[in-house]
Amino acid sequence: MADFFHTPVDPFPITNGCSVSELVKRMEGTSFQARNLATGVDIWARMLEGETTIFFGLAGAMVPAGMRRIMVYLIQNRLIDCLVSTGANLFHDLHETLGKRHWKGSPHMDDVELGRARVNRIYDVVASEDEYIEMDEFITAFSNGLDSGRPYTTREYFRLLGEELARRSSEEGILTAAAKAGVPIYSPAIADSVYGMAVAAGRAKGQNRLMFDLVQDVIETTMIAVKAKSSGVVYVGGGTPKNFIQQTEVCAYILGEEPRGHEYAVQITMDSPQWGGLSGCTFEEAQSWRKIAPHAKMVTINSDATIALPIIVSALAEREKLVRCRKRPVLPFE
Amino acid sequence: MADFFHTPVDPFPITNGCSVSELVKRMEGTSFQARNLATGVDIWARMLEGETTIFFGLAGAMVPAGMRRIMVYLIQNRLIDCLVSTGANLFHDLHETLGKRHWKGSPHMDDVELGRARVNRIYDVVASEDEYIEMDEFITAFSNGLDSGRPYTTREYFRLLGEELARRSSEEGILTAAAKAGVPIYSPAIADSVYGMAVAAGRAKGQNRLMFDLVQDVIETTMIAVKAKSSGVVYVGGGTPKNFIQQTEVCAYILGEEPRGHEYAVQITMDSPQWGGLSGCTFEEAQSWRKIAPHAKMVTINSDATIALPIIVSALAEREKLVRCRKRPVLPFE
Amino acid sequence: MADFFHTPVDPFPITNGCSVSELVKRMEGTSFQARNLATGVDIWARMLEGETTIFFGLAGAMVPAGMRRIMVYLIQNRLIDCLVSTGANLFHDLHETLGKRHWKGSPHMDDVELGRARVNRIYDVVASEDEYIEMDEFITAFSNGLDSGRPYTTREYFRLLGEELARRSSEEGILTAAAKAGVPIYSPAIADSVYGMAVAAGRAKGQNRLMFDLVQDVIETTMIAVKAKSSGVVYVGGGTPKNFIQQTEVCAYILGEEPRGHEYAVQITMDSPQWGGLSGCTFEEAQSWRKIAPHAKMVTINSDATIALPIIVSALAEREKLVRCRKRPVLPFE
Amino acid sequence: MADFFHTPVDPFPITNGCSVSELVKRMEGTSFQARNLATGVDIWARMLEGETTIFFGLAGAMVPAGMRRIMVYLIQNRLIDCLVSTGANLFHDLHETLGKRHWKGSPHMDDVELGRARVNRIYDVVASEDEYIEMDEFITAFSNGLDSGRPYTTREYFRLLGEELARRSSEEGILTAAAKAGVPIYSPAIADSVYGMAVAAGRAKGQNRLMFDLVQDVIETTMIAVKAKSSGVVYVGGGTPKNFIQQTEVCAYILGEEPRGHEYAVQITMDSPQWGGLSGCTFEEAQSWRKIAPHAKMVTINSDATIALPIIVSALAEREKLVRCRKRPVLPFE
Repeated sequence: MADFFHTPVDPFPITNGCSVSELVKRMEGTSFQARNLATGVDIWARMLEGETTIFFGLAGAMVPAGMRRIMVYLIQNRLIDCLVSTGANLFHDLHETLGKRHWKGSPHMDDVELGRARVNRIYDVVASEDEYIEMDEFITAFSNGLDSGRPYTTREYFRLLGEELARRSSEEGILTAAAKAGVPIYSPAIADSVYGMAVAAGRAKGQNRLMFDLVQDVIETTMIAVKAKSSGVVYVGGGTPKNFIQQTEVCAYILGEEPRGHEYAVQITMDSPQWGGLSGCTFEEAQSWRKIAPHAKMVTINSDATIALPIIVSALAEREKLVRCRKRPVLPFE
Repeated sequence: MADFFHTPVDPFPITNGCSVSELVKRMEGTSFQARNLATGVDIWARMLEGETTIFFGLAGAMVPAGMRRIMVYLIQNRLIDCLVSTGANLFHDLHETLGKRHWKGSPHMDDVELGRARVNRIYDVVASEDEYIEMDEFITAFSNGLDSGRPYTTREYFRLLGEELARRSSEEGILTAAAKAGVPIYSPAIADSVYGMAVAAGRAKGQNRLMFDLVQDVIETTMIAVKAKSSGVVYVGGGTPKNFIQQTEVCAYILGEEPRGHEYAVQITMDSPQWGGLSGCTFEEAQSWRKIAPHAKMVTINSDATIALPIIVSALAEREKLVRCRKRPVLPFE
Repeated sequence: MADFFHTPVDPFPITNGCSVSELVKRMEGTSFQARNLATGVDIWARMLEGETTIFFGLAGAMVPAGMRRIMVYLIQNRLIDCLVSTGANLFHDLHETLGKRHWKGSPHMDDVELGRARVNRIYDVVASEDEYIEMDEFITAFSNGLDSGRPYTTREYFRLLGEELARRSSEEGILTAAAKAGVPIYSPAIADSVYGMAVAAGRAKGQNRLMFDLVQDVIETTMIAVKAKSSGVVYVGGGTPKNFIQQTEVCAYILGEEPRGHEYAVQITMDSPQWGGLSGCTFEEAQSWRKIAPHAKMVTINSDATIALPIIVSALAEREKLVRCRKRPVLPFE
Repeated sequence: MADFFHTPVDPFPITNGCSVSELVKRMEGTSFQARNLATGVDIWARMLEGETTIFFGLAGAMVPAGMRRIMVYLIQNRLIDCLVSTGANLFHDLHETLGKRHWKGSPHMDDVELGRARVNRIYDVVASEDEYIEMDEFITAFSNGLDSGRPYTTREYFRLLGEELARRSSEEGILTAAAKAGVPIYSPAIADSVYGMAVAAGRAKGQNRLMFDLVQDVIETTMIAVKAKSSGVVYVGGGTPKNFIQQTEVCAYILGEEPRGHEYAVQITMDSPQWGGLSGCTFEEAQSWRKIAPHAKMVTINSDATIALPIIVSALAEREKLVRCRKRPVLPFE
């Protein structure tokens, strides 16, 4: 019986004054999702210690939620190596880089009235529709200016956009930081966002013939995984970012490579496995597909990302040496 | 005070023998999600009575979950006019149309062992990885055969694929039925699925230069909404299908049209608004964006789709006259 | 590999006309929660076939939700043998038995305004506070009339109340049906409901000295489980009803008996295991406590009960022979 | 339009070194559940600043989850005035006070094997069944020793038990700290826990005739609310603790008092309103019952409590002056 009793639960102590990394350390002694949160920090730290290529999948309205500077920190300090994002987060990032804001609202507002006032709501955040439209037009103009003799991967598109934004604004955002740091950004569902709509607006007026080469995105992300000494994943939410990163291991096989599966895996999600979708599925399930390696270090943190992500990244930031001394992997498409 | 008391809750009666449409009618008298389920049937029926163009967004592993014949029924009887789907559902459909099966499993299986045996798990369903690979190769070969001098919308791609499948198999599926019925299928995140990987495999070997023209998909779906007398939406899950259909109303505005917002809206989801994502957001929130009309009939059904969808569609099917006499809207891209 | 592929998923077919038991049979061929729903019907049917004592745990506002007549059906036809319920459901039952109603409302109503108008809301249901108060007074009067020289088990209390209600009303409810059918009702948190408050009101005025003997409730429910040839459980929601029935197997051990664990187990819940609470825990976890037998037939159905319960009971009701020919177990406290 | 744009979302900054109260302050600038978490700290702080009587409802397996020392801190520093708890948490507290431990496990353990080894699992925690039984016997013996000529409120019972434990152990727990600090503990579903079973074991052997007087608990908690200058509530989970505290305002009315509704309200829950139960209902809904005052400060934090509670209490602890200088309300039943 004693076999089952190795490590006691160590109740969380309250003290006057506690840093975030101490908070996480105390949570490691507890149970349920707090322990998972601490495990997430530990697994991410292990990725940074080894020569692991870290994919980061970003879904959900994380920029309006105030997570943008965290993403900038992760990119600048290279705690992630490749970002796969919904288009929306990259649009909201551009919006803020160009000086616009998101505003605090409430889920109880009168939406029909908001609609009349051209105020768009995202749960407890509001934004000006007119400013959004202004940004749309900026994207249309930018996209019209691209040489359309050939298709663009989303990586190329967002690097060029990041460079353009960096010329126009001193406010650092996801796109500008990634362009500077050489962190590639992919957005497999780019058409399913303002980017798709803004390019469509230009095309409808005969101003551009821009094409996104998503198939090349598939090949590139797969090769990033294949060329990595080892690979790890961090997912905020599910959706296309999670699936797109998970499928690199399947695609590697299809392309005739010998995938090993991602060896580190952290996901922060409020979705659940019992509905059968990819967004909520466990990393165990992913092992049956060999997307995740048999002996991978992995954890699912069931928490709203606005709570878990700031804690995890703040805790990592306190481990200064870990951050400063990371040996950054070289990517094939930098 | 009497002002608040109009319609009593009418407790659900148990009788020996009750049809599904009677079940739904009885649920209408109750509360919570059962009442919402009944409201969903009612709103969908209203869409069928008017000349409403019905968009259907399909996310989640609905084909492995056994929802494929329901989708075929919806298409054949034209209870939906335009399908937006994840790539996965369209891949699993092809798998079954070509004679392969999904199998009952359990969420408690040993996934590392499954991985070793090349058995892929989707919650409580398993499939043969070798058969999946065989299907991948079929898609690569099909895609290689397409004229690659120009890009394809996903609508064109899936119509051609549906026609090809119909030549090869007598088993009716989503793709074949849609090709025959002229129901367009869009898949905005097609690269984020086996389709993307299979085309990538061909390209990596120099066999095809196929491109998907997602920007044109944006324009087409927007024009379908714009040209409709009125539009309605039915969402199973969230993800790109929901957002892609929702954004038609925003895109219409960007393209210089005068969008009215979708006038009927039903979503079946287990996601929730409080995480702030688009998948779980309310239709009320969508009204602030004018994606949904101010006076729209709308309901959110919080239920696993495998329970709600069979009931809703079975209940509609019992209303034979409604189904048979529907005046089908003409789409601009049939 | 073939070892993993025994039973194919059988897609749900749509036909014009389908009974609820046919619906469930079709769901059995599918996956995710629909398959679990069908399994729930199957397990309950097995309980009815054998000589199994069936405990039913009822939590959540199921009477306002319109589930009252289903409960009456279950009791009258003796598809359950012992009911453990929150006090609220038994109060709402009394409310309706005495001719009052619950009314359809909406979750979007202005609650401060409702409060001012003395209208109480339960999600999308409203009720008259004045009528509720009238019922409180009825309970106070009834309780004052009980001989208070000795404490009452909740079983005795609700049987006497059911008999009193049957004398006053021809409307059949949970309490009246249970009193007639000899189905004992326990309510371990009775003080945490209007019953507790109504008795308190009488005591505060010196009108009664009624005591509830909850410890005897513990002994009785344990003995019901101990004396059963085999026992099964059906839970709608979690809370005290689930725990109280689960603990009978632990208590049996403490009382020096040899518990076998419940051999059949069905729960309908929207709670999840990852928060660590008893309400959402799996039946597997319960096996570590030996509350559930090692080889028990068990299933968790993740669905709002207002959807799942009407379907399950309607499906059972169609199996007329099963219902009519059930060999009812004899309880020690009837 | 400008009317809607008052306070911009202020993205969370990452710095090297950040205390928990700084973490919370930064979260206040963000959105979704992180903002709610910060609001929770703010509302609790306001309760401490005024002369508010603070009720705390504790549900879920919070002691095995490592939350016990947090509860001790809250009691010792009198950040709460009245605790309403499930019996289980008070049993697990006694277990640890008497020197036993809970141990780290995993949700993936083999429960049938655990059952055979007499190891009880609570999600990712395990405990020794034999030790639990030993504690049961301690409670039986303690309960047998009580004068059983009269019934006990749960407040009296747990105060006496806390005093007894303090004599036996130097380990400070919830029960001992509360007995010393004069913080009353109520447990409305005490019979639905080991306490009920342990007392039942004694009674079954003729060793005690102990009765719990839950009706008096109702009266006492109501009077605590009635006599308060103002009252506030903090709920971890739902269940009987939440309902029992909420109903004090209804019971006050029934007892002929003039309730004002709780004026501050914080709940940490993973339940949701759409299932209609009391555990997941909003404080807005509670306003229709006048359990919550019309102008109350209130917030719902959708987070696992193991994450939210340590953060909130650590943040409060940093506000030393707030903690030290609180003017403690006098309770009628201390």
